[in-house]
Amino acid sequence: MTKYLMNTWYQAGFADEVPAGGKLARTICEVPLVFYRRAEGSLTALVDRCPHRFAPLSAGRVDGDKIFCGYHGLGFGADGKCMYNPHGPIVSALAVRSFPVVERHTIIWVWLGDAERADPALISDLSYIDETPPQARISGYMPTAANYQLLSDNILDLSHADFLHPDTLGGINSTAKTTNRQEGDKVVVDWLAENCEPPPAFRVTAHGADRADVWTEVVWGAPAVMTLGVAAVPAGQPRTWHDEGYTLHNMVPETATSTHYFYCSTRRFRVDDEGFSQFLRGALEQAFVQEDKPMLESQQARIGNTDFWSLAPVLLKIDAASTRARRLLAQKIADEAAALT
Amino acid sequence: MTKYLMNTWYQAGFADEVPAGGKLARTICEVPLVFYRRAEGSLTALVDRCPHRFAPLSAGRVDGDKIFCGYHGLGFGADGKCMYNPHGPIVSALAVRSFPVVERHTIIWVWLGDAERADPALISDLSYIDETPPQARISGYMPTAANYQLLSDNILDLSHADFLHPDTLGGINSTAKTTNRQEGDKVVVDWLAENCEPPPAFRVTAHGADRADVWTEVVWGAPAVMTLGVAAVPAGQPRTWHDEGYTLHNMVPETATSTHYFYCSTRRFRVDDEGFSQFLRGALEQAFVQEDKPMLESQQARIGNTDFWSLAPVLLKIDAASTRARRLLAQKIADEAAALT
Amino acid sequence: MTKYLMNTWYQAGFADEVPAGGKLARTICEVPLVFYRRAEGSLTALVDRCPHRFAPLSAGRVDGDKIFCGYHGLGFGADGKCMYNPHGPIVSALAVRSFPVVERHTIIWVWLGDAERADPALISDLSYIDETPPQARISGYMPTAANYQLLSDNILDLSHADFLHPDTLGGINSTAKTTNRQEGDKVVVDWLAENCEPPPAFRVTAHGADRADVWTEVVWGAPAVMTLGVAAVPAGQPRTWHDEGYTLHNMVPETATSTHYFYCSTRRFRVDDEGFSQFLRGALEQAFVQEDKPMLESQQARIGNTDFWSLAPVLLKIDAASTRARRLLAQKIADEAAALT
Repeated sequence: MTKYLMNTWYQAGFADEVPAGGKLARTICEVPLVFYRRAEGSLTALVDRCPHRFAPLSAGRVDGDKIFCGYHGLGFGADGKCMYNPHGPIVSALAVRSFPVVERHTIIWVWLGDAERADPALISDLSYIDETPPQARISGYMPTAANYQLLSDNILDLSHADFLHPDTLGGINSTAKTTNRQEGDKVVVDWLAENCEPPPAFRVTAHGADRADVWTEVVWGAPAVMTLGVAAVPAGQPRTWHDEGYTLHNMVPETATSTHYFYCSTRRFRVDDEGFSQFLRGALEQAFVQEDKPMLESQQARIGNTDFWSLAPVLLKIDAASTRARRLLAQKIADEAAALT
Repeated sequence: MTKYLMNTWYQAGFADEVPAGGKLARTICEVPLVFYRRAEGSLTALVDRCPHRFAPLSAGRVDGDKIFCGYHGLGFGADGKCMYNPHGPIVSALAVRSFPVVERHTIIWVWLGDAERADPALISDLSYIDETPPQARISGYMPTAANYQLLSDNILDLSHADFLHPDTLGGINSTAKTTNRQEGDKVVVDWLAENCEPPPAFRVTAHGADRADVWTEVVWGAPAVMTLGVAAVPAGQPRTWHDEGYTLHNMVPETATSTHYFYCSTRRFRVDDEGFSQFLRGALEQAFVQEDKPMLESQQARIGNTDFWSLAPVLLKIDAASTRARRLLAQKIADEAAALT
Repeated sequence: MTKYLMNTWYQAGFADEVPAGGKLARTICEVPLVFYRRAEGSLTALVDRCPHRFAPLSAGRVDGDKIFCGYHGLGFGADGKCMYNPHGPIVSALAVRSFPVVERHTIIWVWLGDAERADPALISDLSYIDETPPQARISGYMPTAANYQLLSDNILDLSHADFLHPDTLGGINSTAKTTNRQEGDKVVVDWLAENCEPPPAFRVTAHGADRADVWTEVVWGAPAVMTLGVAAVPAGQPRTWHDEGYTLHNMVPETATSTHYFYCSTRRFRVDDEGFSQFLRGALEQAFVQEDKPMLESQQARIGNTDFWSLAPVLLKIDAASTRARRLLAQKIADEAAALT
């Protein structure tokens, strides 16, 4: 059985990681990929391994619509077919697999499965990113030496913030009212902490109030695309559209034990407040890089190469949403395997 | 068949490695362990892996008698049972294995096998440590990337000092009169170098004499607890209680190819001579860190993952004691395996 | 089936890597070897693992005709037999395998196979090295994390220079007239670029002419000893003996995925021009270390532990010589295996 969901869109990076004439090498689900921009600007995704002598194409150069192997000069077009062979005729075997790739919501999306099923409509709706002025977006990339589902668990159970991020984000979710549900293919979790002392990172959001109502929601879609919505208002006041912020947390498997963690924070308040942006960027980096990453990597170290479920993890109430998501994903992977037999 | 002797006391460290409120993570026989002190000062040893999501408990904090997982806040008591769950009821599965742990002779001892057989009387008698004033104790820890039995061999055959430590400890044991015997479960080796030129590290011990009688003895007990006694007196003079020094060499398997090497030197002479302590500390560190460790690790590199005996090592007379110890240990491990079937 | 050709001479290094009294540790075909000089200057090659406790002999010292293990002092002679045991009698098992070793063409050659077949006449004729004054020899050693046949491919297909070394060596071979043939056990490839613009590294060679005729030839012998001859003359002028330069490229397997790359450039022109030597040394180092090595190692990374042919590399015309050489070598290895059954 394959380990990964293949008929899905994976984030390969942020669009600005591939400037005009640039290229990006990134391995997803153990497939080495190279991304580059054609002359007119659109993106191409190819297997990052020349069919001649297996050099990475990403070690070569991009010129116009083609990427050229740096070893013997073979040039490949956006469909992966060789378009230039300085050493003789172009035979049909001179080709690498190309993958559907779409740029949307400032993100590069790639489809590793059956290309005929690569419908861009299946990309998660992250239009909150587009609706946010660039100065109020904080995006980042954190490679992490842990299985991507450990990273999903982390977001689907925000009670951990009280223990792992007590100085920035934590203090309210363990005791908040929480519910979770499945909506179609999505898993949705809500936390509502009423009349609480807002955590430091939410204090400004709550207009400086000492007591606040804080609402948090995570929407998960397979394989591990999550949107975390938050709003904090002075206790008892109604929440408005302007109080909300949404952050993408997207966990993309590089291998079974390493993950590309992409995030993008957006907000509808204080969008032009550069000082707040700086504060928020620092708070996120402390939480993710200083606190989450070491914990996730030490979890993986303790798990080793053992199957997660075979270790019989004790399930708590806080695991309801992450367990739901793990099962949904496992079912989707099993369905794909079944469809192939 | 298990690789390690389980029904035995392993040194986990020195007692002062776990101060009040502190904790220590150390893997022994491939079992990740965390050690911490309860409020009243006694030690606890638990599997260092939370049963919920497998985070290391050692990444959390100690408070009173409990250790709290740093990820989701579960608190565990000295018996390994969960005593605090901020997310719901405490179910019986919320527990980690706890191990008998004893503090004796300035050392933390842990028992990984059948807890009912964990008799503290089975701990090697190292009372020479307690009888030595702290200022005359030199203890150290040297993690080494080699199998622990290669490290035992090193101590059980001190002829190597003539070749590997010629400037500090060596020069006498290759030509000394040597005997070895089994006393119960112990292996005892003696060397007597009469009327010899004392090695630099023994010159002061021998009251500055140019010619000395040097007595050396190693007592080994399974799995690899060794006491090395030495005395050097001017040639022809009788050895007295005051001439003797005893050093613990304890080789604790972390994995099949890595070892926690703990040592503690004690002496009955010049106990208040801080200059001599400094000299001795330097001599030991040079011998162990600069000379033994690289040799042991390069031995392991040449052996790789191959079984030691399958390589048909040529046995010399100097290997008599170490071979005896290896066979005794192998028999004990085989006996444990037999008892389980 | 063994992975390596055993009945052949492998370069272990350059002769000056083992000065009088010196020693050299190098693993070839996964066999750890130690090389040292006897008192009268000739070389010895032994398995670098003491038969007693498997310490590397190279961690010991050389004295006269013997090498002494640094752990317990056993001394071994040039035939690998123990000649000194400070701990008792010398038994016949106290021996390590010794290997035929020959110093020729400034190079140390070792024979890992059947010693009776170790005929020095089988060493490739590299007399051009001896015929070159030392000041016109540029030799180097570049350990590379890639299979040695990937490194042979690199030399047997010099078209890559146009793409990988455009600023120094490249620009002419992709479009040159090329032929390859087998001569006995050798594979010979020729390139002739007539009336071309000489690459920077050939400009001086071509007496500064703007247009030149450049001749290049590679002679390969199993397992991977290659001589690359070059000459550049002003376009239309005849090539003379004095225009030629020959460079050894010798790819010696350390393991299946790591190679000792030895090279030695010689020339018959400007032999006393130290400035040109410096320029050439720089150009070679840029090409090999900065350009070839990263490409070769990234090829290996993409290939992983997979068999090269199982990945179905697309063969181009430029691969004719390297494919011929790979097949010749595979046949020789298969013949050795067949002879053993």
